Amino acid sequence: MSSQPTHRPDPLRVVVWCEGRPERVDPEVARRYPHGMNGAIAEGVEEHLGARVRVTTADLDQPEHGLDEETLAATDVLTWWGQLAHREVSDEVVKRVHRRVLAGMGLVVLHSGHLSKIFRRLLGTSCTLRWRDAAERELVWTVDPTHPVAAGVPHPLVIEEQETYGEFFDIPAPDELVFVSSFAGGEVFRSGCAFRRGLGRIFYFSPGDQAYPVYHHPDVRRVIANAVAWAAPEAVTEPPRLTHSEAGWFERSSGA
Amino acid sequence: MSSQPTHRPDPLRVVVWCEGRPERVDPEVARRYPHGMNGAIAEGVEEHLGARVRVTTADLDQPEHGLDEETLAATDVLTWWGQLAHREVSDEVVKRVHRRVLAGMGLVVLHSGHLSKIFRRLLGTSCTLRWRDAAERELVWTVDPTHPVAAGVPHPLVIEEQETYGEFFDIPAPDELVFVSSFAGGEVFRSGCAFRRGLGRIFYFSPGDQAYPVYHHPDVRRVIANAVAWAAPEAVTEPPRLTHSEAGWFERSSGA
Amino acid sequence: MSSQPTHRPDPLRVVVWCEGRPERVDPEVARRYPHGMNGAIAEGVEEHLGARVRVTTADLDQPEHGLDEETLAATDVLTWWGQLAHREVSDEVVKRVHRRVLAGMGLVVLHSGHLSKIFRRLLGTSCTLRWRDAAERELVWTVDPTHPVAAGVPHPLVIEEQETYGEFFDIPAPDELVFVSSFAGGEVFRSGCAFRRGLGRIFYFSPGDQAYPVYHHPDVRRVIANAVAWAAPEAVTEPPRLTHSEAGWFERSSGA
Amino acid sequence: MSSQPTHRPDPLRVVVWCEGRPERVDPEVARRYPHGMNGAIAEGVEEHLGARVRVTTADLDQPEHGLDEETLAATDVLTWWGQLAHREVSDEVVKRVHRRVLAGMGLVVLHSGHLSKIFRRLLGTSCTLRWRDAAERELVWTVDPTHPVAAGVPHPLVIEEQETYGEFFDIPAPDELVFVSSFAGGEVFRSGCAFRRGLGRIFYFSPGDQAYPVYHHPDVRRVIANAVAWAAPEAVTEPPRLTHSEAGWFERSSGA
Repeated sequence: MSSQPTHRPDPLRVVVWCEGRPERVDPEVARRYPHGMNGAIAEGVEEHLGARVRVTTADLDQPEHGLDEETLAATDVLTWWGQLAHREVSDEVVKRVHRRVLAGMGLVVLHSGHLSKIFRRLLGTSCTLRWRDAAERELVWTVDPTHPVAAGVPHPLVIEEQETYGEFFDIPAPDELVFVSSFAGGEVFRSGCAFRRGLGRIFYFSPGDQAYPVYHHPDVRRVIANAVAWAAPEAVTEPPRLTHSEAGWFERSSGA
Repeated sequence: MSSQPTHRPDPLRVVVWCEGRPERVDPEVARRYPHGMNGAIAEGVEEHLGARVRVTTADLDQPEHGLDEETLAATDVLTWWGQLAHREVSDEVVKRVHRRVLAGMGLVVLHSGHLSKIFRRLLGTSCTLRWRDAAERELVWTVDPTHPVAAGVPHPLVIEEQETYGEFFDIPAPDELVFVSSFAGGEVFRSGCAFRRGLGRIFYFSPGDQAYPVYHHPDVRRVIANAVAWAAPEAVTEPPRLTHSEAGWFERSSGA
Repeated sequence: MSSQPTHRPDPLRVVVWCEGRPERVDPEVARRYPHGMNGAIAEGVEEHLGARVRVTTADLDQPEHGLDEETLAATDVLTWWGQLAHREVSDEVVKRVHRRVLAGMGLVVLHSGHLSKIFRRLLGTSCTLRWRDAAERELVWTVDPTHPVAAGVPHPLVIEEQETYGEFFDIPAPDELVFVSSFAGGEVFRSGCAFRRGLGRIFYFSPGDQAYPVYHHPDVRRVIANAVAWAAPEAVTEPPRLTHSEAGWFERSSGA
Repeated sequence: MSSQPTHRPDPLRVVVWCEGRPERVDPEVARRYPHGMNGAIAEGVEEHLGARVRVTTADLDQPEHGLDEETLAATDVLTWWGQLAHREVSDEVVKRVHRRVLAGMGLVVLHSGHLSKIFRRLLGTSCTLRWRDAAERELVWTVDPTHPVAAGVPHPLVIEEQETYGEFFDIPAPDELVFVSSFAGGEVFRSGCAFRRGLGRIFYFSPGDQAYPVYHHPDVRRVIANAVAWAAPEAVTEPPRLTHSEAGWFERSSGA
């Protein structure tokens, strides 16, 4: 930990990962997201971060879900969306991503990704919640205006139609709670949550469903782009490990 | 700090403090709260904690607002409600209460007490918020079910008519966020917040207004009683102070 | 979550779990802990909590490690110590304990238990640290004097000889950081950490090694007893789960 | 809050404020810090942030302590060091700085600045601690390696001689605890603490005393520069204030 570079990688290497199933099985979704959900999310990140990022996409049906060792080794921030097929994600790939997050890679988990294997493994809880689907209005309120992910985001951010998520959301108390949503039916939800695990930063943002055009919403895109920029590490190195030391080991380690 | 007793005082000496003005100037409030707002809150605490507490009340128009040195020295937990007359509270009394909280006294701040001098002094921010008054339904959701203040509280707790409070609520991020409310008009509010300052515990709970019978609501009473029990210290001692030590001062201080 | 009882179980049913191996393979350890490490820890809990607890012990070499469904269903708080044989703990038992913690059971993890499967699964990180073994003095400092686990604990708590643990300790930032230790060689360690996961409370306390008589230390025993009392739930129910609701589902659920 | 720009000011306008007294009354200090403590701190910030900052200095003995309305209105981040003369700082200036921090200005408080009026006002506690002065070695350990202020900082950072600060440090639990120090005599201290108040970010870093050449230490300079960069806001606007709204006020406010 003693010799990280002090500037973030430039450009950031971002992989947008979506399961890729809803747009394949449901023509409505395919019409809504003509470039796939992956495509819509990637466009939003590029729109806001421009030359600061180099974005690629990957999905479940690629070999190793498009997340082989080599690809991950060249990824600074990974975004994750899944819904129908969490169980089809290989345990081996989950273990690899887990290791990489602890080593510093940023992770942005979106919407129904709350039940993904990787999110549950990193957080340790069930990550369950209460839901309804009634095309209700969601209002996303900023409760931490000092947070970089909230920069430039309207207060509230208004989403005309969305699936409803409600508490109790079984996550550890976020290290930083940034957004709280209300839904027309009365539910509230901790919709923007920052976590720090190992050397990595994780952001969960709940808006975004295959059944609504939420990933075309300009403010939602801004939040996701902000989250990618915030989650970027100085550098991805090695995950923390058990270390044995001799007394006074640090005497020759400092720049002092 | 090295020799606190390890059982809480029994019974807890609780002072319920309300400004006492609205019920005097508005016959509607007097009808709604025939024993004053103080009386209603005190009844709720006694109802739930019974022989575990000895409750008295105090208000703004008593000498030293009923919070003279002797009274405070014999108080384990203080609850605070004010609205019209925050500025009339003496700075001397505020300083005294502040000192006592840092020394361990519990403090439960209610509703419009968010703008009281004592709350702002303890938290350091403006403690401002956004409000409307439209007799809307408030739903109070538990986001930390492990917290003692949430024990036995319905999820959600439903209040048919309430004043509306909304974010951004300018407080430090609570040490423990227990409740989040939504209002029929769409606002959200961090309505149950625990803070630890000095040796003292502080709980803020937003439901409760002179214009609504909220302090007769059985679940609201339970929350306030839970908050009183939670905020109670092992003992109130002295506030932390600047201390000079010699090297090895602690060698003779431990029970080891 | 809407109908928990509001008093903790009485007496608390506590299971003290230790691996049980060091005292079997090392006569020094057996001499140091004539009733086993399990025995020493159980005595400390009983010494401080008396009639408030009913303590039993269990270890690795019992069938299902002494943690069959029936036993766990009758356990309010579990304490965990392991070192040599983390890998021998059955995944099935870990899954069962995990589920039970999310449902509300308290868990107190001791010393080298930081690398146990259950702790790593609940926290999601590697839970690794830096260590040396040089019989150095450990000083345990209270950084949150409002916390129930710190009640009656000397500041600092002095342990004449201990194994040295040092940062970086790869855990999520604790929900409440209660103790920080220094060691004679200069290392620091977050030695008392509270976490809330699902409906359960978890406390990690680092002092305590088979090679030192730490579990006979009166202040260490007090901390462990405090942690058991703090971690006790109102009641253990069911773990949180994914729930589908209809609009307005809560209207008939409240006592309002 | 709905229309912040999304890029930080460039260059950052930084004011380094030191009381300026020790170097005037003590020739040893003047020899140690030939350009004043202000000068040493400013050099460190410029050394690391270069063209990203424009640094000026101010001290107690200037009119309005060099912190008149106009200067503050043009300041993005303020650093604060004081020791002998906290009481001489004008309450009017403290109020002005407080207001500006809530409006978004970053604040970096150094060493004995823990007892400054502005730090105590922002945090609400006594901010007292335990101290000795014995030229002991301080080791500064990183406990949050994901934090931008820790980037490029050795683990541990070694300071050969320093004044000793010890717990209990009476501050609110930091929003992010980044560094914990040990001292040769055994004390520990939460030496690097991040707070968020209103729209502003605050960092406290304890190393640095007039009696030691700590502000010439390359790693200490890096931490202070990192803290300045981290505390910088997107923009300083107005402090949060009490706001009355009509129902549905937000419908025309969003980009949605």
